[in-house]
Amino acid sequence: MDDKAMLMIPGPTPVPETVLRAMAKHPIGHRSGDFSKIISEVNANLKWLFQTQNDVLAIAASGTGAMEAAMINFLSPGDQVIVGCNGKFGERWADVAKAFGLDVQIISAEWGKPLDTEAFRTALEADSQKAIKAVVITHSETSTGVLNDLETINQHVKAHGEALIIVDAVTSLGAYNLPIDQLGLDVVGSGSQKGFMIPPGLGFVSVGEKAWQAYETAKLPRFYFDLGKYRKSAAKDSTPFTPPINLYFALHAALEMMRAEGLEAIFARHERHKQAARAAAKALGLPLLAPDENASPAVTAILPDGVEAEQIRSAMRKQFDIALAGGQDHLKGKIFRIGHLGFVCDRDILTIIGALEATLQSLGYERFTPGSGVAAASQQLQ
Amino acid sequence: MDDKAMLMIPGPTPVPETVLRAMAKHPIGHRSGDFSKIISEVNANLKWLFQTQNDVLAIAASGTGAMEAAMINFLSPGDQVIVGCNGKFGERWADVAKAFGLDVQIISAEWGKPLDTEAFRTALEADSQKAIKAVVITHSETSTGVLNDLETINQHVKAHGEALIIVDAVTSLGAYNLPIDQLGLDVVGSGSQKGFMIPPGLGFVSVGEKAWQAYETAKLPRFYFDLGKYRKSAAKDSTPFTPPINLYFALHAALEMMRAEGLEAIFARHERHKQAARAAAKALGLPLLAPDENASPAVTAILPDGVEAEQIRSAMRKQFDIALAGGQDHLKGKIFRIGHLGFVCDRDILTIIGALEATLQSLGYERFTPGSGVAAASQQLQ
Repeated sequence: MDDKAMLMIPGPTPVPETVLRAMAKHPIGHRSGDFSKIISEVNANLKWLFQTQNDVLAIAASGTGAMEAAMINFLSPGDQVIVGCNGKFGERWADVAKAFGLDVQIISAEWGKPLDTEAFRTALEADSQKAIKAVVITHSETSTGVLNDLETINQHVKAHGEALIIVDAVTSLGAYNLPIDQLGLDVVGSGSQKGFMIPPGLGFVSVGEKAWQAYETAKLPRFYFDLGKYRKSAAKDSTPFTPPINLYFALHAALEMMRAEGLEAIFARHERHKQAARAAAKALGLPLLAPDENASPAVTAILPDGVEAEQIRSAMRKQFDIALAGGQDHLKGKIFRIGHLGFVCDRDILTIIGALEATLQSLGYERFTPGSGVAAASQQLQ
Repeated sequence: MDDKAMLMIPGPTPVPETVLRAMAKHPIGHRSGDFSKIISEVNANLKWLFQTQNDVLAIAASGTGAMEAAMINFLSPGDQVIVGCNGKFGERWADVAKAFGLDVQIISAEWGKPLDTEAFRTALEADSQKAIKAVVITHSETSTGVLNDLETINQHVKAHGEALIIVDAVTSLGAYNLPIDQLGLDVVGSGSQKGFMIPPGLGFVSVGEKAWQAYETAKLPRFYFDLGKYRKSAAKDSTPFTPPINLYFALHAALEMMRAEGLEAIFARHERHKQAARAAAKALGLPLLAPDENASPAVTAILPDGVEAEQIRSAMRKQFDIALAGGQDHLKGKIFRIGHLGFVCDRDILTIIGALEATLQSLGYERFTPGSGVAAASQQLQ
């Protein structure tokens, strides 16, 4: 049915009516006092959400643009970097690093498995010359639903002492407790169409003091993504280039809603939905791609056996107007992914599992007791 | 009064209700068939608007991001480029070129004066080694309201034979007849919050065949702004990175409105409003910054004498809820700028001139016959 689509993908995520209405306001001048006030409030709330006193800079770009900025501002041609690759996004950051002429060492794991933290320890400890300038980690790997063990890898980076840690928190920020200052994360990137509950078009980068020191001598060319310009403007409640004004209206409203809910409640909600989705999948006999101990709070990837992933997605869309995500690259057609990120409530989880059960039955998949998925999910939502 | 603001600045420009409503729809998945259809229709209509068969690629970025992409995809470190500078934006493109290590020759003119086309002819003719790889021209210089003589400069570039012409059409596209294919313009950048009648957040670059050839050997690093990726995706009605979905909804609606009005009518409307604004300024004894023969169709800059520009802006905002633009850089406080770009009708022009007359009177400026500004504007609107 028209206008009945329910988005359960890991971005874009559902957007609250309050936010859509804010976004539909007539634009105002971006150099006006009224807009400066919005920038000021948004920037303060971003620091709250990022749990940091660092600059959190907003850029008109997708999450990929934000991550490119997160890398190119702090490095010079030929610099050694380690990039963790266990999914599409880790591989993308390696591609960005190569495109800019960095000397890239990839530490990879099979898609669906977490990065091996010991491999990072070994590589960093072996670097007695302190030549490694940065370690790039995808926290929640959206393509597989794996949550990498950022805390442990970060400890190894801290032991190294020289390298910056650059984190893709695109689908973990606002979903999982990521205390940037407490962990001392140097650079953290994210994107608006995820935990932020607004449409795509804004990327975010938080930058700490050690990274700003690296910025001073970093020689990769940059202009639009020059974060120094954004920092200078942010100090004056402004932006270096025309900001996406209506997305700021949306973000302003969304951050107010998030403050009202509170960080702990937001993280608990995502944890609960992750547990419910996983419990339901198990009850339905559907294999989970990521292990329990490294499961993303934002997205659950399922590798069905005895029923086609694409048939499930297609039937869910046709009968129930529910959009699920498919697999990417070599996982295309093999997995489907349930997004439970951002503006998702307990009811949505029951809805999706109920529809999934009905869909599985209609496809002739019989490896479960009807009702067991919803029951398992319900138990996690208590 | 709240909600009564009237935007008469050269971007963001007013946004039609139809477009705001389209933008406020719930996002859909950007990899869905429904969104591919929108991309396909948007891309076809962009080609119509740009009057070209070239690829017109949309990027989640401001106009500055689009112009950076327009430059870095076709050049290598150390390449010689000429940048025309007679305002803030020309200077910005010179800064981009320098940031990326290009060998920049600046041909400048005083802010408010047009670029000297003969200086381009001389420089290009002197380049017998054909070392100049690109000429970057700001068509409508938003900071001063000067429309540079792109056609003549383009002829000199064509006579050179080697150099690409890269055009900033941020405030001329959709306001002035710019037949890209007829003129053979290699690369043309623009931004959404201008003639496109939607909020900021999308940049556009049209790329011709000669530029794509240069792309093959161009060595400046790029990833997010790699236009080859956008071209490849556009051929499949897709985008390489998450697009700003709701701005696409807005653009889809706005382009339909523009097609309904027709290019000739759109250009005639902007010409009429330019003439009306200039005739009114003259009747009010207000000096115009740009000469008649090089006046932008998008913005009219006024250098008032006997009354303070900032007082005019402030009074217009306070009593009449009209936002005018001020001056930038060294013109700050000296000029004010009336935007007549995008979704502006004849009534808006009379409104602004009427309010300007009332404001001038309230500020004690008496160098005009009351009513003469509105009368002069009206005559141009016949």
